[in-house]
Amino acid sequence: MIETGARRREIDQVASQLFHVNGYAATSVRDLAKALDMQAASLYAHVASKDDVLWSIVDRAAGDFERAADRALAETPTGDAVERLAALVEAHVEVVTADPQRSSVFVTEWRHLAPGRRASIADRRDAYEARFRSAVEDGVAVGAFAATDPALAATFLLTALNGIATWYRPDGRLSPDRIADHYVELALRSLSEDPR
Amino acid sequence: MIETGARRREIDQVASQLFHVNGYAATSVRDLAKALDMQAASLYAHVASKDDVLWSIVDRAAGDFERAADRALAETPTGDAVERLAALVEAHVEVVTADPQRSSVFVTEWRHLAPGRRASIADRRDAYEARFRSAVEDGVAVGAFAATDPALAATFLLTALNGIATWYRPDGRLSPDRIADHYVELALRSLSEDPR
Repeated sequence: MIETGARRREIDQVASQLFHVNGYAATSVRDLAKALDMQAASLYAHVASKDDVLWSIVDRAAGDFERAADRALAETPTGDAVERLAALVEAHVEVVTADPQRSSVFVTEWRHLAPGRRASIADRRDAYEARFRSAVEDGVAVGAFAATDPALAATFLLTALNGIATWYRPDGRLSPDRIADHYVELALRSLSEDPR
Repeated sequence: MIETGARRREIDQVASQLFHVNGYAATSVRDLAKALDMQAASLYAHVASKDDVLWSIVDRAAGDFERAADRALAETPTGDAVERLAALVEAHVEVVTADPQRSSVFVTEWRHLAPGRRASIADRRDAYEARFRSAVEDGVAVGAFAATDPALAATFLLTALNGIATWYRPDGRLSPDRIADHYVELALRSLSEDPR
């Protein structure tokens, strides 16, 4: 059997849906094969284990977030902390809304990865969060942001951003662009000196 | 067998832990009985079904959030929107940090409730979120908060607040009170006019 990219992507897409609805632990390879209208034996020709499927989804999602953040930072060459944070927030909203189910699996189910892979994703999540924290720290250092706890502020923002995966609907009242505009505004304001 | 409150609370506590770690769908009554060092048949003397256990956890968590919000609003008798929002944020942090595992189950696993119960919790969640939205709306109306999308701002804040359940550790560097102080500050600032 020849592995094709399209078939592999279909497996990941259907698996994302099942993991999102029922959770990774409650989804068997048999459930996945059934949803794909395949025999479990045929599915094993494409993927070696359930952990491999979760890894494929989570690794690709992590890569999408990382590349979007890379592009966002490359587009703010002056290094201005406020612009950097705005660009990171906008990029994150774009990736989450492009595939909310996969993002939700990335956010909630990565804990179920086998230990080595879990440690690798934990490191990448830390490095990703550090970009947000660093933008906050740099903004505080130059007086653009109010003195605060930069690590906690980064966590506050990222949990709100990841929460989008739980409520966003493509047919909802707000487009991804409008959500991004609002979230950039809320994020930047949350770090501004209180005018009162 | 006489049902005692303590035993019932122990069942809910152990179930919260299992549902938090593996998810509701992946946890069987047999798993729960084993973790409680009981026979499944004995457990059924205390609870009629797995759904009953989830309901007990979720209903109690919802009640705790509702009562904390009631108290918070009762303590801001002037009805000042800024004070109301601050009090609601503080109350939410207090409930989440008091039992992060249960809060996490409340936030992520309530979707698995049987339809009637799920609808009832969805209504209560909506009513709870409406308190945050209403504080934002009232603040915008009197010019205390910047014009924004009050419904989206309430969702932004509540997802960040619920995210605390995913990272809070009782032995972490920040106490619940410090987290509450920071989150009140971030929340109020996120709605302030940008001074730039």
